[in-house]
Amino acid sequence: MIKKTDPSLVTLEPEFIAAIVDIFENKVVFNRTLGLKALATSATEVTATIHMRPELVGHYAYNRVHGGVISASLDTIGGHAVMAAMGARHIDEPIAKRLERFNKLGTIDLRIDYLRPAIGEIFTMRAQVLRLGSRVASTRMEFLAADGTLLSTGAAAYIVS
Amino acid sequence: MIKKTDPSLVTLEPEFIAAIVDIFENKVVFNRTLGLKALATSATEVTATIHMRPELVGHYAYNRVHGGVISASLDTIGGHAVMAAMGARHIDEPIAKRLERFNKLGTIDLRIDYLRPAIGEIFTMRAQVLRLGSRVASTRMEFLAADGTLLSTGAAAYIVS
Amino acid sequence: MIKKTDPSLVTLEPEFIAAIVDIFENKVVFNRTLGLKALATSATEVTATIHMRPELVGHYAYNRVHGGVISASLDTIGGHAVMAAMGARHIDEPIAKRLERFNKLGTIDLRIDYLRPAIGEIFTMRAQVLRLGSRVASTRMEFLAADGTLLSTGAAAYIVS
Amino acid sequence: MIKKTDPSLVTLEPEFIAAIVDIFENKVVFNRTLGLKALATSATEVTATIHMRPELVGHYAYNRVHGGVISASLDTIGGHAVMAAMGARHIDEPIAKRLERFNKLGTIDLRIDYLRPAIGEIFTMRAQVLRLGSRVASTRMEFLAADGTLLSTGAAAYIVS
Repeated sequence: MIKKTDPSLVTLEPEFIAAIVDIFENKVVFNRTLGLKALATSATEVTATIHMRPELVGHYAYNRVHGGVISASLDTIGGHAVMAAMGARHIDEPIAKRLERFNKLGTIDLRIDYLRPAIGEIFTMRAQVLRLGSRVASTRMEFLAADGTLLSTGAAAYIVS
Repeated sequence: MIKKTDPSLVTLEPEFIAAIVDIFENKVVFNRTLGLKALATSATEVTATIHMRPELVGHYAYNRVHGGVISASLDTIGGHAVMAAMGARHIDEPIAKRLERFNKLGTIDLRIDYLRPAIGEIFTMRAQVLRLGSRVASTRMEFLAADGTLLSTGAAAYIVS
Repeated sequence: MIKKTDPSLVTLEPEFIAAIVDIFENKVVFNRTLGLKALATSATEVTATIHMRPELVGHYAYNRVHGGVISASLDTIGGHAVMAAMGARHIDEPIAKRLERFNKLGTIDLRIDYLRPAIGEIFTMRAQVLRLGSRVASTRMEFLAADGTLLSTGAAAYIVS
Repeated sequence: MIKKTDPSLVTLEPEFIAAIVDIFENKVVFNRTLGLKALATSATEVTATIHMRPELVGHYAYNRVHGGVISASLDTIGGHAVMAAMGARHIDEPIAKRLERFNKLGTIDLRIDYLRPAIGEIFTMRAQVLRLGSRVASTRMEFLAADGTLLSTGAAAYIVS
């Protein structure tokens, strides 16, 4: 039987966090195109930020962030949360082995609800893993204005191994 | 009572199509970041294409397109299909007035199913409006490999006016 | 301009609550088939309960609640939350007029995530309105075991007027 | 390596079809509560029907089918399509072994788009498996009026084994 560790009881090693933040910010190239920066990464919640830039505009009349920036950001931060949770679940494995799990991580599907127009200079986002199974992980994500107003929500399922 | 025209019986004017393609390809700046190009735009179906570029990579190990590129592309092509269908529905209005409707178009929500990894040089996408109401439009979208393999599907709802 | 009242500052009248609970429990006949009972109804959150019965079984091998019972319950409790929020938003209107709004309420779309099998004697559910616009309302819903374990989550959009 | 058979080249045995139709119509008790009847079951598409009954009413003012009936029906017919496709994929296995796969089938998540009010005496539904993987299956479903009008669409992901 696979030994399962409760993620909320685990403190992830700084090396592991640094490695998955590097994947999130740099190795996933499109995240660099978006300009995503990790804020805090733990086994139970991850947060990140994105700065408005002209390339991200959706509606030219309002200088609004493109909905696709939001869907892309929430998809990818959900995956980041899954990586963090898997890092905790398999804390007994060497870091390198846990990082290999990223190669088998894939989004099954995604839902985004656009609640309010995303207009501003900077936005934050956060993701929580609602369930981490042996084959599927489910996450809930939020995209927020600088003042904390909820702009969009997301839900996604990921294949894990 | 608003006069409703069956979109399938309407041929959109080349000027109207050119104008909404310009919005799709240029004015929605993030679509330019993605590199979306319209292929065919009619009142009942729209198609577009995207070329693989390094900035769009999701998984560095496989040179796979980022899921967020797909969600962004399908969100925006769904909106383009809604603009085309509204252009047909309100064919009696001047073009400028119909184009103003874009200012009130917004995605309510979006679902993307990622079926197969998007690896390749060029991809196509298409969108159909399943229902165009007076307040809400619903669309179905597909993201396809060069050989026609279905890679991702999408469904979205848009607020219209 | 329509006067908007912040729902969190409004105490709904017992008569209004009784009327929308009667719609929820009785007039929406399928809710009676499901056996839904309202627990608490306020302008900002609604809760309800459902008892396991043989007719609701999905998987005979496990005596598990059918996923469709969950999707139906979360769809309908989301609508109930929207009715409560609209009752608060339009608190200056007579109750009868606010109840008429139910006739124009419709679900646009729904997403359900099934996290864990629903096995037990009694379940609770809750719904919150994330945004109540003049044309669209968005909600978030949860389906919980008796011990509070999160079994399923939902998100929905509703057309309102 | 698991031998994979192209479902479109497989004719399912009448005994296998009868067994999964029995699960669909009878053993999944809530389907009996709904009154679902299978119409045609093949490896590539399944269809079913449902008759309007007072217990299924959602909106009493319009005698409209409850949205939850539609979400439940589309969830379950999607699962039925997955069972049929798995029956074809594993055609070399004995029927009893293939039927055991039903015990591990579960819906991961579901999206329903409600396009038009479901008012009528009888409705049909159909489901197709868009992708059958070794761990996850994705389906697309439709809920139709007697005259073929598209009333609702659905998409779902299922865990398989």
